[in-house]
Amino acid sequence: MPETTCQIRVRFAETDGMGVVYYGNYLTWFEVGRTDLLRQMGESYREIHENERIHLPVLEAWCRYHKPARYDDVVDIVTRASRPSRARVRFDYECSRVEDGVLLAIGTTLHAAVGLDGKPCRLPKRLQELLS
Amino acid sequence: MPETTCQIRVRFAETDGMGVVYYGNYLTWFEVGRTDLLRQMGESYREIHENERIHLPVLEAWCRYHKPARYDDVVDIVTRASRPSRARVRFDYECSRVEDGVLLAIGTTLHAAVGLDGKPCRLPKRLQELLS
Amino acid sequence: MPETTCQIRVRFAETDGMGVVYYGNYLTWFEVGRTDLLRQMGESYREIHENERIHLPVLEAWCRYHKPARYDDVVDIVTRASRPSRARVRFDYECSRVEDGVLLAIGTTLHAAVGLDGKPCRLPKRLQELLS
Amino acid sequence: MPETTCQIRVRFAETDGMGVVYYGNYLTWFEVGRTDLLRQMGESYREIHENERIHLPVLEAWCRYHKPARYDDVVDIVTRASRPSRARVRFDYECSRVEDGVLLAIGTTLHAAVGLDGKPCRLPKRLQELLS
Repeated sequence: MPETTCQIRVRFAETDGMGVVYYGNYLTWFEVGRTDLLRQMGESYREIHENERIHLPVLEAWCRYHKPARYDDVVDIVTRASRPSRARVRFDYECSRVEDGVLLAIGTTLHAAVGLDGKPCRLPKRLQELLS
Repeated sequence: MPETTCQIRVRFAETDGMGVVYYGNYLTWFEVGRTDLLRQMGESYREIHENERIHLPVLEAWCRYHKPARYDDVVDIVTRASRPSRARVRFDYECSRVEDGVLLAIGTTLHAAVGLDGKPCRLPKRLQELLS
Repeated sequence: MPETTCQIRVRFAETDGMGVVYYGNYLTWFEVGRTDLLRQMGESYREIHENERIHLPVLEAWCRYHKPARYDDVVDIVTRASRPSRARVRFDYECSRVEDGVLLAIGTTLHAAVGLDGKPCRLPKRLQELLS
Repeated sequence: MPETTCQIRVRFAETDGMGVVYYGNYLTWFEVGRTDLLRQMGESYREIHENERIHLPVLEAWCRYHKPARYDDVVDIVTRASRPSRARVRFDYECSRVEDGVLLAIGTTLHAAVGLDGKPCRLPKRLQELLS
């Protein structure tokens, strides 16, 4: 299964009044992770959209929060693609603090292949191969 | 079970390059929903924090996306509290477009009671009663 | 000069690690304000885009921060349109806390009329009249 | 005058329904830029807060938008500190697309030194020297 690790540094904009990263922002980090995974595999999400003429909208998202991330923390985002079905792709994520290796959060997103007309379609062969 | 409905109007800031609301922003709407639920029940989240001296950080969040919301849509957020356990509270959410009643997304968040020292604690009685 | 007042309630997502609203989020509030102004005047921004076939991208934004807004504060956003020129519109904003009337921030955005081809164009007559 | 360049890659979360980066997000990028400048100069913003016991809240922000940034663009953020006064610091920013060198936006933020009690104070000597 394809897997990548990318790093982000926590922005002050991402923290909330409890002094930790707001829970919704992990979904943005997951997006950074899967964008990176696709790019590392030779096809950016932008290219998928332009070449294959599909979108991959999110059907479902889930996140479990283990420890809070704080401003200026450097965070590793590990992203794995699951073996895709005909029309769906799943990505799994693990976020951990680089400094001490502490696991911050894990999560999953499930995506459908959708044509430019907005209708569900089969996942393009090339993408199926890349993600297998 | 306590339940409230509140309304938000989709901000342009909340849309993304696909012309629909970015998937992470639903978690912000869920926060708007549970803040509203607590306020309707007579105790704002800010008061809970100040009076009961606890936080309710999110342990887990889940969202299923049914139909995309668009800029300027008015959205109903229905929030329900589940019967809380000693140390945890669960909220369920339903977002639907007011204009045509279309269901946009459903979701759940699970919260722990945590003292100001950051350690897990029991849910204050008053909050347990309010949410039952 | 057309003017409207609309209200928002501060979301926890909008606060930062200093416990106050993150400075960039005022620009989102300004967007809420000008969207409201156009709607009150009988033409939503979405309609302007669809009927007049133009966008009004921001050329310049400016904000002065007077006092911090906090979680759960109810905020009045007063928006005024300035007499538009042939190709530009300016909006001015004032954000104040409803509870005590304290001025939180003032700001300005300058917008160009741009056709769907992305090229500058004249402001449609109807919009010029609405905003004068 | 101290100056640094750092890079960010545009997140899909940062784009809006016009397919370009939402105007308010440039203020987040400016924050990334000044955080980087301070870190490069040997003192992170977090350290300033903890060691010098001050905050540097934003008094004023200004941004001029030249060309739109798009999803997946790599953007250079050049940040310069202006010679600080006794109680204020100013940072200037330039954002440009790495691929073609196109200038995207320029901006400025003005900050006050504020003690942990929230009252204005003098800029610590060490910080004055670092930024001169």
